[in-house]
Amino acid sequence: MKESKENAVISRATVDRLPLYYRTLKLSQEEGLEIISSDELGRKIGVTPEQIRKDLSAFGEFGKKGVGYYVQELMRNIGEILGLNRNWNIAIVGVGHMGWALANYSNFSSQGFQIRAIFDIDDDKIGRYINEVEIFHIDNMKEIIQKCDIQIGIITVPVAYAQDTANRLVEAGVKGIWNFAPLKINVPANIYVVSEDLSIGLSSISYYLSR
Amino acid sequence: MKESKENAVISRATVDRLPLYYRTLKLSQEEGLEIISSDELGRKIGVTPEQIRKDLSAFGEFGKKGVGYYVQELMRNIGEILGLNRNWNIAIVGVGHMGWALANYSNFSSQGFQIRAIFDIDDDKIGRYINEVEIFHIDNMKEIIQKCDIQIGIITVPVAYAQDTANRLVEAGVKGIWNFAPLKINVPANIYVVSEDLSIGLSSISYYLSR
Repeated sequence: MKESKENAVISRATVDRLPLYYRTLKLSQEEGLEIISSDELGRKIGVTPEQIRKDLSAFGEFGKKGVGYYVQELMRNIGEILGLNRNWNIAIVGVGHMGWALANYSNFSSQGFQIRAIFDIDDDKIGRYINEVEIFHIDNMKEIIQKCDIQIGIITVPVAYAQDTANRLVEAGVKGIWNFAPLKINVPANIYVVSEDLSIGLSSISYYLSR
Repeated sequence: MKESKENAVISRATVDRLPLYYRTLKLSQEEGLEIISSDELGRKIGVTPEQIRKDLSAFGEFGKKGVGYYVQELMRNIGEILGLNRNWNIAIVGVGHMGWALANYSNFSSQGFQIRAIFDIDDDKIGRYINEVEIFHIDNMKEIIQKCDIQIGIITVPVAYAQDTANRLVEAGVKGIWNFAPLKINVPANIYVVSEDLSIGLSSISYYLSR
């Protein structure tokens, strides 16, 4: 039975909710909570308890009827599902304001995401460090990415360079790309891309303010 | 019947999916598509067609059985639901790299989100402009926010100043806050807060790379 669960197709929307569950469980743990009901977890996140039970049931049996979920245990389980129990090596390409902001973002390393290399084309930036991570020229991308065993690339270059950057990252061997350029980039089918659209946060606010 | 739909409680997760539908419909329109099935829309977004039909049914009757959704019509309807058919005036507080990156983010204005004012405490920055928007001292926040009819505030200050910034924004009259500081801020119940956790994009990538 467990196997069939693991082989089931999990929707993208479910996967996108898992980090919210993880984050909320972590906050609950920090508040000293040991057990949480799906009602309470749902209220904190803003989804129905039925949705939570359905999402989690896709991955196995969690929680205890009439009791709730053990916060630490569920957090560890979701962390494992999300691959947060291991380290991921990451490269940022493009040292504009967004690249700089992400290189300084403190939440990444606490979840196992380690920025190992930064790339740019500006000679004034090459050889400098952000948060102890060196900035290299993009012409050295393949060598550095292989040497540092980097699996994920973040694209923060201007839109005109985004596709070329993606091509270089794929050629260098990354398996996942987080794209901040407002452009749909084309990659081979075995590469996983998340395109960030920051307008989504604002859309959610404007929805509620419109009520 | 339409009224009862509007009064129904819509889950946060549904609201968070609407901008994805909107964005995907917009891309489809740009590709010249006039009609799209829930299967095809679901495939592009990564959710099941059932989920799409369920999400949209909360807001009324859309699409035509056996035909699909009219792309432009559905896009307009979702835009109205999200409040994207009107202009929202926005202030950014904190001109670090993230504040600077957001002030330059080109996707906001095309969706009706207009940055009207930027605030900081650094005298070297006050009076300068980013993208034709002036940087003011935070001591002038209340006056500027009321004069410019600003409804939404974006917090990009260091974490130690985030709660104080939220208090000032609320006192000045904003109704919605988009918080980039890694901290749960406390606001009155009538203020809507979205906390941005950029790790979520990476968690989705690490999930897929772990399979």
